[in-house]
Amino acid sequence: MKWCRFQIEQRVSYGVVEDDQVTEVTGSPLAEYTVTDTQHLLSEVRLLPPIVPPMLYAAGPNYRGHVEGMAKRRGAEPIYPERPEPNFRSVHALIGTEENIVVPKDCSGAVQPEGQLAVVIGKKARRVAKEEALDYVFGYSIGNDISQRVWQGNDRTMFRGKNCDTFKPFGPWIVTGLDPTQFHIIVRHNGSVWQDFSSVDQIWDTATWIQELSRYTTLHPGDVLWMGTEGADGDMVPGDVIEVEISSIGVLRNRVVAEN
Amino acid sequence: MKWCRFQIEQRVSYGVVEDDQVTEVTGSPLAEYTVTDTQHLLSEVRLLPPIVPPMLYAAGPNYRGHVEGMAKRRGAEPIYPERPEPNFRSVHALIGTEENIVVPKDCSGAVQPEGQLAVVIGKKARRVAKEEALDYVFGYSIGNDISQRVWQGNDRTMFRGKNCDTFKPFGPWIVTGLDPTQFHIIVRHNGSVWQDFSSVDQIWDTATWIQELSRYTTLHPGDVLWMGTEGADGDMVPGDVIEVEISSIGVLRNRVVAEN
Repeated sequence: MKWCRFQIEQRVSYGVVEDDQVTEVTGSPLAEYTVTDTQHLLSEVRLLPPIVPPMLYAAGPNYRGHVEGMAKRRGAEPIYPERPEPNFRSVHALIGTEENIVVPKDCSGAVQPEGQLAVVIGKKARRVAKEEALDYVFGYSIGNDISQRVWQGNDRTMFRGKNCDTFKPFGPWIVTGLDPTQFHIIVRHNGSVWQDFSSVDQIWDTATWIQELSRYTTLHPGDVLWMGTEGADGDMVPGDVIEVEISSIGVLRNRVVAEN
Repeated sequence: MKWCRFQIEQRVSYGVVEDDQVTEVTGSPLAEYTVTDTQHLLSEVRLLPPIVPPMLYAAGPNYRGHVEGMAKRRGAEPIYPERPEPNFRSVHALIGTEENIVVPKDCSGAVQPEGQLAVVIGKKARRVAKEEALDYVFGYSIGNDISQRVWQGNDRTMFRGKNCDTFKPFGPWIVTGLDPTQFHIIVRHNGSVWQDFSSVDQIWDTATWIQELSRYTTLHPGDVLWMGTEGADGDMVPGDVIEVEISSIGVLRNRVVAEN
């Protein structure tokens, strides 16, 4: 099942996507909901981030090639993480597919993409065993963890390096019933492939992350975990288009613009 | 005005506190609300975190004495922050006054308090000038930024060092119409004063933080910013009681227990 969240006129609603149609749903897919008779063409609605999570977790370094690529950018030796421990991202930075990524005026003028698998939690999870962890997943989507590498490198926290308004494209929708170990993730910059990797190369897989997070925190319905990226991509400047595609989910597509 | 959030039987509601009474309110103090005729004794309700913020920001080092105390713990020279840049905390770690702080089984066995002024945003704020910043504040409350210093020192992120379930006591309520530059903040451990400081000694004040945050992110109604602590306090172990008192707000009081 393909779940989206969309706006039409002033109304915001969840919806079920089939082919080029979206069927309006009342309530929430994570609680109680009713599928209505109201249908729209997908092309007529504005897709929003498919959920607004109470907490947005980011795995950070979860692919060896990303650790190595980022170390090379800094001219340092790679340091691989010892444990799966997340950072947090701002939920206010989320935007949907086709919305613009805004490059802040006072930065170096470029930002960098990080295509990521997004895992949406469906049920309260605390002290969950790895073997049962995937039962707590509602579905999968796509995230682009936009980064401003100069700020990321120089600032004390990742506040403005990763969390400016519009820095967190998320969508286009959530797909249920998939196997998270075999996703094929492609990042395209103005049509050229910048990354092409598989979730099989994650340092820790989705089930391990859920197990580890739930040792210390209760995961709540709607919480979202971004699973890290491969490689270390180049600069995007105003006018560029960035796409993240995941096999069996879809394409998250955003244009880069300059702040007015 | 003193705003709380409380539970009575299975019902959760906002309320207005006067003396030892709380009056139930329907709706939200940040949007539309109606004061009802229903009153309870404060002693008969369970106070919850006074708001569940979309984002919980923590100023981190915002007092010179905290930077120096933490450096001394590490045996290092103090490094003062160059800019006001926040970290994020988990909203799932929030607990109300009188709820228990749970020390995780697999840590060193102790946790540390950080008494903080909590600033609650009332209106959407983006690119706000310092002179107008306080107009965007709904009110002030108290936070205790519980930390597990061994994890905080050794882990790559502050996930488990600062964000385990129950690590974020917040309350007891929000008070409107106060001046944030003159708060007197006291931390008491089992009745002994561990810290006694004033918000006048902040490296950056509330208005400056709101100005700086709003340069990069939209602040939303209900967002909360914890303003940092002074000094570097000692260990709390199961059985201890920790209180944070702020003049003209109240007392946030929590007991420390061991995880079962």
